[in-house]
Amino acid sequence: MNKKILNNPEKVVEEMVEGMAMANPNRLKKVEGFNILVRSKKKQEGVALISGGGSGHEPAHGGYVGSGMLDAAVAGPVFTSPNPRSVLKAIKEVKTNEGVLLIIKNYSGDVMNFKMAAQKAQDEGIKCDYVIVNDDIAINNPEDRRGIAGTIFVHKIAGAAADGGYNLEETKEVANKAINNIKSKGVALAPCYSPSSGRPSFEIGENEMEVGLGIHGEPGVEVQELKSSRKICKMITNNILEKMEYDKNSQFSLMINSLGATPLMELNVMAKDTLELLKNKGLTIYNCYVGNFMTSMEMKGASLTLFKLDEELKDLLNHPVDVSIKL
Amino acid sequence: MNKKILNNPEKVVEEMVEGMAMANPNRLKKVEGFNILVRSKKKQEGVALISGGGSGHEPAHGGYVGSGMLDAAVAGPVFTSPNPRSVLKAIKEVKTNEGVLLIIKNYSGDVMNFKMAAQKAQDEGIKCDYVIVNDDIAINNPEDRRGIAGTIFVHKIAGAAADGGYNLEETKEVANKAINNIKSKGVALAPCYSPSSGRPSFEIGENEMEVGLGIHGEPGVEVQELKSSRKICKMITNNILEKMEYDKNSQFSLMINSLGATPLMELNVMAKDTLELLKNKGLTIYNCYVGNFMTSMEMKGASLTLFKLDEELKDLLNHPVDVSIKL
Repeated sequence: MNKKILNNPEKVVEEMVEGMAMANPNRLKKVEGFNILVRSKKKQEGVALISGGGSGHEPAHGGYVGSGMLDAAVAGPVFTSPNPRSVLKAIKEVKTNEGVLLIIKNYSGDVMNFKMAAQKAQDEGIKCDYVIVNDDIAINNPEDRRGIAGTIFVHKIAGAAADGGYNLEETKEVANKAINNIKSKGVALAPCYSPSSGRPSFEIGENEMEVGLGIHGEPGVEVQELKSSRKICKMITNNILEKMEYDKNSQFSLMINSLGATPLMELNVMAKDTLELLKNKGLTIYNCYVGNFMTSMEMKGASLTLFKLDEELKDLLNHPVDVSIKL
Repeated sequence: MNKKILNNPEKVVEEMVEGMAMANPNRLKKVEGFNILVRSKKKQEGVALISGGGSGHEPAHGGYVGSGMLDAAVAGPVFTSPNPRSVLKAIKEVKTNEGVLLIIKNYSGDVMNFKMAAQKAQDEGIKCDYVIVNDDIAINNPEDRRGIAGTIFVHKIAGAAADGGYNLEETKEVANKAINNIKSKGVALAPCYSPSSGRPSFEIGENEMEVGLGIHGEPGVEVQELKSSRKICKMITNNILEKMEYDKNSQFSLMINSLGATPLMELNVMAKDTLELLKNKGLTIYNCYVGNFMTSMEMKGASLTLFKLDEELKDLLNHPVDVSIKL
């Protein structure tokens, strides 16, 4: 059912970004004239981190701006990449002597616009580099894999590295190590709705689920009959593990992410099923995150992410953060 | 649309509680044979705090067990009070020399069962008392007002008091001071669905909203045409302020709470509208919480809560906590 609590659908992103800044004045500031959130207290030292993309994935990415994570989040229109000018503005707002690292989700619009902004920044003498997150193993070809909930782990690892004095090259390197170790996949039970047109992002039968969906309202790579939590978790976890290199000593962080409207009741049933499954395989789960981390507005469904850790990544994952949600 | 990721609807509460404990082994432990979550490390000193009620309101209340907040959460069946035997078990699990305070939401089943458990505990020589939260001003008669999202503030105030060495009487007193200063009201745009019957909690028209709903799937006290965020926030905020005593120097904490399926995009638009409205009235907002705090599974809608603060309440509200969400 398409019902939203909004004012003007054409201004929803601006109003949302303003609301986030107003609700968190000690942590966030909106850049005037742009849908960009930066830390209220600009970081003076260390690599600055920027992420962003189309809106509709909240708390991504404005909710991850804060001590220990991002320095800025650039919000495009709903499910549409922000333009290069906005990204460049964010770069100029947060740049430090150590440089700026962009964390880009692997969608063609985001990649094009963020890379253009990085190039322009470099042309103006600003140290700027980027990494591309592609954790969605629903797509076979790694180059075409989308960035989904695993992106939050990259924010956290890179944020801790920047805080710990890693330089730009080192921060990029550890972010890429994380990216190589992060794999995700999701299912959707019900679509999300465009705030402007009111249309659902896809049609789906009463007893069906989309498997391997993206987070921009696109349908999955296949439609299956809706299954039990245990069967869904088993299918996704096995899919992910098939694409990973690991052994019996590997340790993982697990994320159970709601796509927006899936209640914690269901997410915690999924947590139980997935943790039991991994335990039965003899694998060690270092820690587990359950909640709304990367959403598609009110889409019903969930994604699972496995992040294979080593000692360096574990230390960075433990670095304290002050952002909008508990991490 | 009723679609859930579950296994057996009859076992959903047990599986969810197990999942919460498994996902947070450093913070939570399930009491064997009961749907009770306690801290993995039992508190040895200070008043112990217990809350609970029917399931379906997650993260309430298991998500609020942890350092600085609750010592135990008792989960009943979906939207049904836990029985006195379970509450008594929780009391015995967490009791300290300083005693136990029960934080009860004002629903007849909860009040009856928690009070019976408190009486039994007292009969067995355990110091035990309770407070009743009734923040829902949709109901006119204060005695009949339900406990909704404002309950989280009571957990936080009482938790900080217990940590700060308040005795049982003092903890109860400050919790009651908080309760008197907390008022909430909500709207619902779409119902939630019973995991067992699959039935919606109410029927609602395409262009309607329920105003003044409870969190147990019950419909609101009136049906209105769906309005803009600005109009909804104005109506609720004015309703709340009419029931409060305050002056120009009053300071408030504001909570914008999703009933389950309302995305952060909409909640943050509501935050902007409400904060602007309060500012225009000359009122001071001390801080603001935006997110899923007290839900009705996948119900679509939101509630607003205003909590009038004094210096003592501000200090207690600032006390650090380690629970499942950022508070």
